[in-house]
Amino acid sequence: MKAAVFIEPGTVEVHEMDMPTLQKPTDALIRVVRASVCGSDLWWFRGIAQRTSNSTVGHEAIGIVEEVGSEVSSVKPGDFVIAPFTHGCGHCAACRAGFDGNCLNQEPGGNGGYQGEYLRFAHADWALVKIPGQPSDYSDDMLDSFVTLADVMATGYHAAVSAEVSAGSTVAVMGDGAVGLSGVISAKLRGATRIIAMSRHEDRQKLAREFGATDVVAERGDEAVKKVMELTEGAGVDAVLECVGTEQSVDTAVQLGRPGAIVGRVCVPQKPEMNTNNLFWRNIGLRGGVASVTTYDRQVLLEAVLDGTIQPGKVFTKHFDLDHIQDAYDAMDQRTAIKSLIEISK
Amino acid sequence: MKAAVFIEPGTVEVHEMDMPTLQKPTDALIRVVRASVCGSDLWWFRGIAQRTSNSTVGHEAIGIVEEVGSEVSSVKPGDFVIAPFTHGCGHCAACRAGFDGNCLNQEPGGNGGYQGEYLRFAHADWALVKIPGQPSDYSDDMLDSFVTLADVMATGYHAAVSAEVSAGSTVAVMGDGAVGLSGVISAKLRGATRIIAMSRHEDRQKLAREFGATDVVAERGDEAVKKVMELTEGAGVDAVLECVGTEQSVDTAVQLGRPGAIVGRVCVPQKPEMNTNNLFWRNIGLRGGVASVTTYDRQVLLEAVLDGTIQPGKVFTKHFDLDHIQDAYDAMDQRTAIKSLIEISK
Repeated sequence: MKAAVFIEPGTVEVHEMDMPTLQKPTDALIRVVRASVCGSDLWWFRGIAQRTSNSTVGHEAIGIVEEVGSEVSSVKPGDFVIAPFTHGCGHCAACRAGFDGNCLNQEPGGNGGYQGEYLRFAHADWALVKIPGQPSDYSDDMLDSFVTLADVMATGYHAAVSAEVSAGSTVAVMGDGAVGLSGVISAKLRGATRIIAMSRHEDRQKLAREFGATDVVAERGDEAVKKVMELTEGAGVDAVLECVGTEQSVDTAVQLGRPGAIVGRVCVPQKPEMNTNNLFWRNIGLRGGVASVTTYDRQVLLEAVLDGTIQPGKVFTKHFDLDHIQDAYDAMDQRTAIKSLIEISK
Repeated sequence: MKAAVFIEPGTVEVHEMDMPTLQKPTDALIRVVRASVCGSDLWWFRGIAQRTSNSTVGHEAIGIVEEVGSEVSSVKPGDFVIAPFTHGCGHCAACRAGFDGNCLNQEPGGNGGYQGEYLRFAHADWALVKIPGQPSDYSDDMLDSFVTLADVMATGYHAAVSAEVSAGSTVAVMGDGAVGLSGVISAKLRGATRIIAMSRHEDRQKLAREFGATDVVAERGDEAVKKVMELTEGAGVDAVLECVGTEQSVDTAVQLGRPGAIVGRVCVPQKPEMNTNNLFWRNIGLRGGVASVTTYDRQVLLEAVLDGTIQPGKVFTKHFDLDHIQDAYDAMDQRTAIKSLIEISK
């Protein structure tokens, strides 16, 4: 089978590989229909994070179940599924508390290689999310939206859940990438009535407004704080979705909240050390981390896509086939695409 | 009138002072019945925090309203009240959101001098909490419990609210001082079914158990983490109340939580810089700050004291009169009292 592999920073290639096989009775083998490139893939693509040469890549996909282990009964061969990047077992304390992204039984090193024709999926019985029908029952746009439920849409939603966005909230969303835009969708889905998108790119501002942003602030740093304070009559916002991860973005996020606001962050912090007194003296909360993909898909996101309430697939502004995986990465690296979709099979 | 004043680190004296007067139409003048010494007073008493010589001290009291400004209508002379250390205006964005400890209209420099015969109280109309009847209607124990509603009990409760303790929670409480013990009371009041008190002093362990602790862990650091993990079958707790503020305590608190747990902290952090990756990778939340005293007293705490559900006044293990204010501070400084109460008038 064909799969994308990392060669060196800046280079991915499609290689012929051995078919993955079931390794545990809780595994499933999935034939990939569509996959996508994640902003976090750019970390190793750009050489910021280390990655082993010739390793398979990708962690967002939808597909058809080909084969299941003896302990998998919730899905069967032929089922159409979302393959989340998380692999919750469903029965540990973390999964039971709704934090399946931190499953206590996950495999060391994780489970990847979603940008290929087939993938092995761990903890398939609980973590896979079944989609009704078959790919041929859905439009291209709908299939794209399903792909976002493997990671990016659930990650944006995790920012909103972590920041405790609720009906009537005023929300600021830091970041206009696919995660930030998913954050805007999520804030609206949770009933926020005012959504301030922090964005300086016209195409992304437009999409943010389409997704529910009521205001756009292009400024950064102190100027951004000033602007948001003006928009909120000096009070600050009820919730901040931090979907960037840079030091400046996190610092600004903390300043945008009114006393008691929570910053929900879902991007790996670039600078771990933080002055938490800035939180303490204004009762600003800091929550977030890896998204609870399966939990959110089942609770709310799959239904919201199926009934047309949300169209997160619009974050895919460019489509590629597997043979053009390098172009898919380049487009995101050079910001000519918000997010790249890879069509792999029908 | 007589009031306690700070002389130099280690020394407080009672001086004859001018009577405080109303300075704003939103002020009230209070005759103090009982006051108390706060753990945070030890910061300047020990010379760790700077304080101006000859300044009046204290920020926890109950008393009788003597006089009110023209814009104060919710209380009148003769009313028996809790005088919180916080001074919420009741109408700004912070107060409306339930964070009156961060009122956006509070006076620069705050409002103190509660350890004296009279005090001027800012934002009296909203922030004061009326107690039914008169001091003579209540037992000494009940009066002591009312005093805790000016700060320490509400602060412990804020730790539990910030950590989002709910019915059925398993909770760890860092710190066995008056705040930590109030945290134990709060966890129980919010329905926690398992409360692990981190305490190494026998008298405090005993009081913690009386207040609702189901388990006591005397270890610190890695040994404490190991012990709590054993008690929770390797999962960690649902919520952590951080009532110490030292670097070690905060570090331990973060490690005690299961994925998704929140650390609710209410003590000024000794070391502001913190590695927040330890939070991110396990979805541990960090919330807390200054308590919402008036909000909590009105919502739940005053009623819980009045109906006997909670007896937070038991944290006062020593009683003094105003003339023995030095002894009251010494007792807390030398840990011969958990908390010192000052009887000032009837």
